[in-house]
Amino acid sequence: MKTEHVNQITEAVNAVKAMDVKNFYFVACGGSMASLATGDYFLNRELDIPSRVYTSNEFVHVDPKGLGENSVVILRSHSGTTPETVEAAKFARSKGAVTIAVSMEVESPLCQAAEYVVHYNYKDGSDAIDGETGVYFSLIFGILNAVSPNEKYDRVLKQLSHLENLFETNKKNTFDRAFEYGKENKREKIIYTMGSGAYYHQAYSFTSCLLMEMLWIHSNAIHSGEFFHGPFEITDFDVPFLIIKGDGPTRPLDERAINFAEKFSNKVEVVDVAELDYTGVDEDLREYFGPAIAGVVLRQYADGLAEHTGHPLSVRRYMWKMEY
Amino acid sequence: MKTEHVNQITEAVNAVKAMDVKNFYFVACGGSMASLATGDYFLNRELDIPSRVYTSNEFVHVDPKGLGENSVVILRSHSGTTPETVEAAKFARSKGAVTIAVSMEVESPLCQAAEYVVHYNYKDGSDAIDGETGVYFSLIFGILNAVSPNEKYDRVLKQLSHLENLFETNKKNTFDRAFEYGKENKREKIIYTMGSGAYYHQAYSFTSCLLMEMLWIHSNAIHSGEFFHGPFEITDFDVPFLIIKGDGPTRPLDERAINFAEKFSNKVEVVDVAELDYTGVDEDLREYFGPAIAGVVLRQYADGLAEHTGHPLSVRRYMWKMEY
Repeated sequence: MKTEHVNQITEAVNAVKAMDVKNFYFVACGGSMASLATGDYFLNRELDIPSRVYTSNEFVHVDPKGLGENSVVILRSHSGTTPETVEAAKFARSKGAVTIAVSMEVESPLCQAAEYVVHYNYKDGSDAIDGETGVYFSLIFGILNAVSPNEKYDRVLKQLSHLENLFETNKKNTFDRAFEYGKENKREKIIYTMGSGAYYHQAYSFTSCLLMEMLWIHSNAIHSGEFFHGPFEITDFDVPFLIIKGDGPTRPLDERAINFAEKFSNKVEVVDVAELDYTGVDEDLREYFGPAIAGVVLRQYADGLAEHTGHPLSVRRYMWKMEY
Repeated sequence: MKTEHVNQITEAVNAVKAMDVKNFYFVACGGSMASLATGDYFLNRELDIPSRVYTSNEFVHVDPKGLGENSVVILRSHSGTTPETVEAAKFARSKGAVTIAVSMEVESPLCQAAEYVVHYNYKDGSDAIDGETGVYFSLIFGILNAVSPNEKYDRVLKQLSHLENLFETNKKNTFDRAFEYGKENKREKIIYTMGSGAYYHQAYSFTSCLLMEMLWIHSNAIHSGEFFHGPFEITDFDVPFLIIKGDGPTRPLDERAINFAEKFSNKVEVVDVAELDYTGVDEDLREYFGPAIAGVVLRQYADGLAEHTGHPLSVRRYMWKMEY
């Protein structure tokens, strides 16, 4: 990892370490919120300190009672310009919370509004450890290790150096299937996604940002555990599902949903995270790496759809075109 | 309120009052989870004690680190038989948490598994104060008042006696429009819902239980604040939205989403909670009553769709028909 990233992360982690943290808030919008939610998932499972995810504008308007001087607020925006998130950073800071901005633009309004900045490189040829996933996971496991030291987290932090290889290998291994998926599903007007645990947020991101935003395909990210309590009645032979079979404790929820969906729909695609390549990652750390890798694999499914629908992922009809 | 309900609620509230509560968990599935989430919303906004919502199976599998002897776990299942929620009650109890079951069946497995039981009457001609909303809101505001006494909560508890009239009046006032809505939208294959704050959960419930489960209409409950960060690109002249314009601090989020949706879609239906009848409710308490009333109003929109699609809300293809 480049020194500037190491320094930024160290500063932020040290600030957290020096406090008596009462709670964590993860605040962002859309895909950025979904990315942050992976951190919320791990913190909530491994730490005895509460954490909560908010979409930025709701955070500011609801003004949660727990927000204050002993809060850590982690905010994220790719460009660092998302107005609601910039506002949320100012708001959190005015309440005395420690604020950490995650963004690719160190000079952005978000990074200027927050007390601590953790910036990542983007499409500049950098190694993945200096990219959005490498930097964010380093921050999260740095915080975990600071608040509740564990040799496991030390190993995660070291093995994150394999991300570049893991991304490349897994992209290569899944490319053909993702391309084929795009061909098979290019006429679909609606595609449901499903997942649980840390992977629910990948499903949410795929639904909101890739299917709805970039491909204009109707969608809903269903939690695998919620599927049987309402949504599953929509299942039929011609209803498409893209389901993440996650790693970690909630895998049985995904398995149950997949078993059902495959019985009644002919259009079920399963992305099995346990079948990915984890070279260089210790067996007991796999569940921490799965969410980091799943994103780049899923992205290829969107590329496949873009290719075969002739609808590039870069096309928008509202964003960048008007005020809203 | 009937004495048995008063006694059950008092016992549960006293148990919470006697503890040093570290956190609240709201645990259920589907529509029951969405109902509980209203409590989570109010607690999180008004108390300096963290709370969190879980779908039952994820709660058990993730095993959040914060769960323990100082936790209060509120669980809900209409029939009290939802296996995942019964399991969650046993799990929470095994961890030493105080468990409170909310159900219509006092003899159900859920009520037997939990330490405290708060049961409500259902379709037996009882007044709404003894029904699911009256009893649950009495529990939540009883807890709020026990943990952080406030004359405001006293007034909410007293004015909940108006629920029956509020339900009847508002159902009457919105019946014609809901019926007409069903006629206008009977051919729609997909209907998006939207909301924020306490009302997001109403949108979720309407999407999962009424549209997808009962009417087999595709849907996704979009958070009004998230709409602009992905989902809004799906908006087009022929894409239907049913949007709850909520009361309370996040109303501006709904207004922004409505303004946008109405500009680009010809099929936007707005249910404005501020326009409902609040006779007997103090001005400053309206935002606590809106979520209680919105559910019965929205239900009529589903009735309208059922009437005009000829698809009764009671029809299922999987539930009650097979093991899954």
